[in-house]
Amino acid sequence: MQFPKSLIAGELKTFEKKFGDAVKSQAPLLDRIMKYIIKRKGKQLRPMFVFLSAKLHGSVNESTYRAAALVELLHTATLVHDDVVDESLERRGFFSINALWKNKIAVLVGDYLLSKGLLLSTEAGDFKHLHILSDAVRQMSEGELLQIEKTRKLNITEDIYFEIIRSKTASLLSSACCVGAWSTTGDEGIAAKMKLFGENVGIAFQIKDDLFDYGKEDVGKPTGNDIKEKKLTLPLIYTLNTTDDSTRRKIIYIIKNQHRDPGKVRWVLDQVTAAGGIRYAAERMNEHRDAALEILYQFPESDIRRGLEELVRYTTDRKY
Amino acid sequence: MQFPKSLIAGELKTFEKKFGDAVKSQAPLLDRIMKYIIKRKGKQLRPMFVFLSAKLHGSVNESTYRAAALVELLHTATLVHDDVVDESLERRGFFSINALWKNKIAVLVGDYLLSKGLLLSTEAGDFKHLHILSDAVRQMSEGELLQIEKTRKLNITEDIYFEIIRSKTASLLSSACCVGAWSTTGDEGIAAKMKLFGENVGIAFQIKDDLFDYGKEDVGKPTGNDIKEKKLTLPLIYTLNTTDDSTRRKIIYIIKNQHRDPGKVRWVLDQVTAAGGIRYAAERMNEHRDAALEILYQFPESDIRRGLEELVRYTTDRKY
Repeated sequence: MQFPKSLIAGELKTFEKKFGDAVKSQAPLLDRIMKYIIKRKGKQLRPMFVFLSAKLHGSVNESTYRAAALVELLHTATLVHDDVVDESLERRGFFSINALWKNKIAVLVGDYLLSKGLLLSTEAGDFKHLHILSDAVRQMSEGELLQIEKTRKLNITEDIYFEIIRSKTASLLSSACCVGAWSTTGDEGIAAKMKLFGENVGIAFQIKDDLFDYGKEDVGKPTGNDIKEKKLTLPLIYTLNTTDDSTRRKIIYIIKNQHRDPGKVRWVLDQVTAAGGIRYAAERMNEHRDAALEILYQFPESDIRRGLEELVRYTTDRKY
Repeated sequence: MQFPKSLIAGELKTFEKKFGDAVKSQAPLLDRIMKYIIKRKGKQLRPMFVFLSAKLHGSVNESTYRAAALVELLHTATLVHDDVVDESLERRGFFSINALWKNKIAVLVGDYLLSKGLLLSTEAGDFKHLHILSDAVRQMSEGELLQIEKTRKLNITEDIYFEIIRSKTASLLSSACCVGAWSTTGDEGIAAKMKLFGENVGIAFQIKDDLFDYGKEDVGKPTGNDIKEKKLTLPLIYTLNTTDDSTRRKIIYIIKNQHRDPGKVRWVLDQVTAAGGIRYAAERMNEHRDAALEILYQFPESDIRRGLEELVRYTTDRKY
């Protein structure tokens, strides 16, 4: 990640300062939470995509910085809300906001972050950015709700799986690339291409995430966490679609009734490997990675393009 | 309420249809929840304020309808999120979304409604509306967080009480009046006046809500629920500020340690009445009602003005 980051080192530094200013609050409790959120910030993949997408087509400007802040504010807001959604007690190795301050504060902090993003954009008149990101928020919430509904009934087809990951994961990444490019070009055609680019990256990213659950030779044992949570992802969906009737029934029975039994979960994992579910998911992931790269190759060669290429490869090659 | 409603009967009917269309979703679960939300809709005070504020200064137009939908979508989103925040199992006599579908769905549905409001406004280019409402969302979340923080420490002064109710309750009502007037005038001066008008109505509305807890002669016994939840509102704050040291210490001890004892809560309620806390809060409420009316009287007499006047009086005279 050193290489693409060095291409936008100055931008990321300026961004960090601006982002910190944007979330400042008069309320002491809120200010404390914001400092905590900033401290545990992740890899900042989304701001990187914004700046690289912007720089691929022009010079980073104030509107680019606001776009990156808007994307990161919404991303952080959904992370904080996800803490409630997932009832997860831990995120990125720290305790989640939810665990520390309880659900109610997490909801309000998420709303606060969302409103800050909106204010930033409406104050400056970044209409287009706002529209793109509003649609991303809609897609993310709809996607999560669809996943909850389908998970309950265990009836996820491959089409629905792709619909879910497209809306819940890929929409924000595609928006990040889209607003980045828009901020330096104002060109509908380029923005649409970059949106599709980001969507493919996002889909590949999520398949990779789902694959981690089934383990990787060089990383170690699969966790099987998704099965324990009755979450059907691509490797398992493929297996259910291609295996014989009796195996399929047995897998479904285990997911419904024995998903807390490590031996049974292990058996399901073995079926997925045997059926080629992992290989199939990896192939689909690589297809989306390649689709993203093909879009990228429509633009002239440059350091920035190489940086984006590296970021794309990182999404499918990463070890964590 | 029959009178002011009849002045905008056509608008409210059209609005209902538009609002229903705005929240439609492809996802079956979401669509079911939306239908449920529409069914349990409240008095629609906020849309009424939007339409009357709009009509006071001009003719209701498409932008007014979008403004009303935006306000109602954000209001509904915060209600749904409040269900999580308050951990309340019931709202408006129905089971809350939270109780029925759990926290995680409530958070996502709130986010979905928020995004729908944003999309509606960005699609049409209602920039000004969006800016005003984004600030209201910020204020509401900040206000609630301030209340949580202060409630914990039981150190709410009268100034802080007003800061909390101004942001958590009055900001949305003031925005409703402001965007309503803006939609038919595009006049900064009128919009600012209507914003202040709505703010005063909102403050009076919240004081009234807080007063219900201390009972009304014609309604019956006070509930004392706020005391049970360790919530300090105006009647009690005034009492703590004016009573003798020993009574104050005793009240604080009860709130902290004996707020589940009905006899003790009853004793606190008696102290508040004796100290004139209820009378004082009612006076402050009426000041804000009068401030709202005074702003209204700056505009020419009309049926619509009388309708708004009636709505203002309703906020302080209502029995529930």
